[in-house]
Amino acid sequence: MTLKPRTPKDSHILMTELVLPNDTNLHGNLMGGRLMYWMDIAAALAAGKHCNAPTVTASVDNISFENPIKLGNVVHIEAEVSRAFNTSMEVHLRVWGEDHLQQYKYKSNEAYYTFVALDPNGKPRPVPQIVTETDEEKKIYDGALRRRQLRLILGGKMKPEDAEELRALFVKD
Amino acid sequence: MTLKPRTPKDSHILMTELVLPNDTNLHGNLMGGRLMYWMDIAAALAAGKHCNAPTVTASVDNISFENPIKLGNVVHIEAEVSRAFNTSMEVHLRVWGEDHLQQYKYKSNEAYYTFVALDPNGKPRPVPQIVTETDEEKKIYDGALRRRQLRLILGGKMKPEDAEELRALFVKD
Amino acid sequence: MTLKPRTPKDSHILMTELVLPNDTNLHGNLMGGRLMYWMDIAAALAAGKHCNAPTVTASVDNISFENPIKLGNVVHIEAEVSRAFNTSMEVHLRVWGEDHLQQYKYKSNEAYYTFVALDPNGKPRPVPQIVTETDEEKKIYDGALRRRQLRLILGGKMKPEDAEELRALFVKD
Amino acid sequence: MTLKPRTPKDSHILMTELVLPNDTNLHGNLMGGRLMYWMDIAAALAAGKHCNAPTVTASVDNISFENPIKLGNVVHIEAEVSRAFNTSMEVHLRVWGEDHLQQYKYKSNEAYYTFVALDPNGKPRPVPQIVTETDEEKKIYDGALRRRQLRLILGGKMKPEDAEELRALFVKD
Amino acid sequence: MTLKPRTPKDSHILMTELVLPNDTNLHGNLMGGRLMYWMDIAAALAAGKHCNAPTVTASVDNISFENPIKLGNVVHIEAEVSRAFNTSMEVHLRVWGEDHLQQYKYKSNEAYYTFVALDPNGKPRPVPQIVTETDEEKKIYDGALRRRQLRLILGGKMKPEDAEELRALFVKD
Amino acid sequence: MTLKPRTPKDSHILMTELVLPNDTNLHGNLMGGRLMYWMDIAAALAAGKHCNAPTVTASVDNISFENPIKLGNVVHIEAEVSRAFNTSMEVHLRVWGEDHLQQYKYKSNEAYYTFVALDPNGKPRPVPQIVTETDEEKKIYDGALRRRQLRLILGGKMKPEDAEELRALFVKD
Repeated sequence: MTLKPRTPKDSHILMTELVLPNDTNLHGNLMGGRLMYWMDIAAALAAGKHCNAPTVTASVDNISFENPIKLGNVVHIEAEVSRAFNTSMEVHLRVWGEDHLQQYKYKSNEAYYTFVALDPNGKPRPVPQIVTETDEEKKIYDGALRRRQLRLILGGKMKPEDAEELRALFVKD
Repeated sequence: MTLKPRTPKDSHILMTELVLPNDTNLHGNLMGGRLMYWMDIAAALAAGKHCNAPTVTASVDNISFENPIKLGNVVHIEAEVSRAFNTSMEVHLRVWGEDHLQQYKYKSNEAYYTFVALDPNGKPRPVPQIVTETDEEKKIYDGALRRRQLRLILGGKMKPEDAEELRALFVKD
Repeated sequence: MTLKPRTPKDSHILMTELVLPNDTNLHGNLMGGRLMYWMDIAAALAAGKHCNAPTVTASVDNISFENPIKLGNVVHIEAEVSRAFNTSMEVHLRVWGEDHLQQYKYKSNEAYYTFVALDPNGKPRPVPQIVTETDEEKKIYDGALRRRQLRLILGGKMKPEDAEELRALFVKD
Repeated sequence: MTLKPRTPKDSHILMTELVLPNDTNLHGNLMGGRLMYWMDIAAALAAGKHCNAPTVTASVDNISFENPIKLGNVVHIEAEVSRAFNTSMEVHLRVWGEDHLQQYKYKSNEAYYTFVALDPNGKPRPVPQIVTETDEEKKIYDGALRRRQLRLILGGKMKPEDAEELRALFVKD
Repeated sequence: MTLKPRTPKDSHILMTELVLPNDTNLHGNLMGGRLMYWMDIAAALAAGKHCNAPTVTASVDNISFENPIKLGNVVHIEAEVSRAFNTSMEVHLRVWGEDHLQQYKYKSNEAYYTFVALDPNGKPRPVPQIVTETDEEKKIYDGALRRRQLRLILGGKMKPEDAEELRALFVKD
Repeated sequence: MTLKPRTPKDSHILMTELVLPNDTNLHGNLMGGRLMYWMDIAAALAAGKHCNAPTVTASVDNISFENPIKLGNVVHIEAEVSRAFNTSMEVHLRVWGEDHLQQYKYKSNEAYYTFVALDPNGKPRPVPQIVTETDEEKKIYDGALRRRQLRLILGGKMKPEDAEELRALFVKD
């Protein structure tokens, strides 16, 4: 059985959260860990929407936190599946903070989470492939191979010299 | 003023958590996001213990989740500062799951979080340097430069061709 | 100073939540009170986005729960300001449940929350008016007067015989 | 089988909660949604005590929040079944705030929640009827018919012109 | 200034809680620690109601858990100040579980918490004394001296041989 | 079958927690009840590690809170089984607070929790005995008999005159 391919938009999730006292550190800023928790749920929902199966978080790519999000501010998390492999999916996340009183919206960070789809016995199962519709989706789709090689290398499952796409970044032949 | 250097052991934190129902997905496994939340707190405590100042999460390196941790199992998180830069610290985390009934302890994952120390005005401030004592600490300390270059490249703050240490992984001259 | 009017879309909020074990009753269904808690936050965010000021919940109109939302399902809450009065705003909410595994999305309920904007001393302050753009927005906008009369009567602040709009529902002259 | 009728007192529940930081908005006041969450649990306990069966929230009547309840204050919620229909029960709630330091107790709001009793298959099941003992219980009992008509109209399940009791409020024949 | 004495009833608190999934261990029973958390809040509310001042938990007497309280059951906690000393108050707590479906109410445990009243500088301040009205209150009031001696001995602040009331339990002269 | 005895170290648990806003009272100090909740989990983990079976909290000995632990401080809880009886285990807990900014670590309190091991039917089952290795472990082990008598007396299951070990504290023959 071939699964019908889907677009990133098909799995689009928008999550909106309010930063409450217990989400913050002593500076009154959202703790990084609380944000990663929300991002994991948003990403899991996008993955589940894409493959219509239970999923588990397999890995999270490097995340850099640009701007602190303050107590009482709003967090917007957008997630969509950017590329599917055999049984795994890469989910692209974009996070903004927003201060309604000051009408100020700012980018917090961008990230990639990877999920694996499970069959009823808890074994990995095939997922639908991604077809892109826009130039930006295509660019993110193309970068997914490189990110995947980096994940495999960092996870000790691939040798750096076998990572063709990634290697090209460092070596001008 | 020069800050007195410290060892990784000086900032060692051991956190132990029990996986409760609300921490799990429909498979009864610990959600990745909940684990990253706990890891962020453990890492923040290690960073704060190292520099005796408030800190904020600056970035999180690629994390790969090896084994699911089940409802009712125990999570052990070990964190210690592995290398200090000018105002930032890399924290090395190791996570195990444990099933007391089956006397079974297993590695879940390993990760690096980076924190920045803040002065009372919320500006970055210098932190003590790290001196290593064991071979393993030394090895992790040495790898920190390479991981830092990767963070800077992935964060768009360094060009791949300027990343000497990292480049060596991909190019056999 | 006259505040520039805004459209309902200007204050649009989409909140997405996952139903976790602690959100459910013994049947594994989302508790009504937990849903009203999420709806209150979504509505407060829409109100704050409309008036760029702190707000407090003044009242909640009758809510009827149509379909139970199950553990592991997704809750989508859409909120936007439907009409503004002098210092208060009516927020219109629409709630859906979604089961990703079964690709099944269903309406849960619809509701109206009313918020008051506060100045820095905690006193009510004027809010921008609403201009509608679509027929549906217009219809909801028109109904707001009738709902307001009902709120005032139920809150003991208006006599039924003074409620012109509402009265028309019951009396065919 | 006829179920033995019960009094409102038979299902009386008193819930007492302390307002903690995470229950409050930026003004340090209890969020309306958190209060509705507690009220839903108090009402569910009263309904369950009345019918000795699992119950689900069917609807919530208009709630108006009179006085803000501050961080560190105490919330008292009294709930009792005010009238039973065939398979549903109306629960009457009264909410007070209390400031122990200032020895000041104040009414916050009053509300009606409706619950449906479920049999082991999740289908509605008959509940015991209510017999009133005091004048106040009788008055609330009598008003329940009118509130029910309003619920049915607002839920689109009854036409306004068929609501005899409610209509009498608006029309002096 | 002499503070007007108060009765135990004056500080009576009734707290009612529902046991949710995250409150339970793998057997589906309420965790002892969660119950002690609720008891601490109920006791703090009774102490605050008695002395109209902020209070802190000073100690907790031996607690024995008789009957497990199950998921979905109701917890009733009754607390009242049983005796006041100079700046501290002993609070007597009684805890019941209740299963509404089976109409079964059972005692879970009984306990004594001690609280200290604080002035605005965080220093201990005098509290009103207790006058008892019933035989049971009198009996609990009388036992408070003995329990206090036990607390002081266990806390290392009194020698066993100086504990007159307690000693009488062990020595028949 | 005889269970192989174990040392207190075999069941050693170290739990580390950060005091967040919702864990504190209006003074910004950790609430006693929240600490007892964490202690219960730490103790349960030590008991489960000792006997490799599910356990339930049977009782908690007198706890005295010496020093308040402030918002943003760190809580360290050490737990280990100090003595085993037939089907129950006494767990010894030591709690410290730590302020990383001020490099100040202080003792908060010490406590004993008792747990019972359960077989798959929920009935008490035998647990391994404790063999001590250090003088301090031996001293705590020896005191366990006296504490157990106190528990039994306070729980109404032993008469004071039958408590030989405890009696010796009060009577110099």
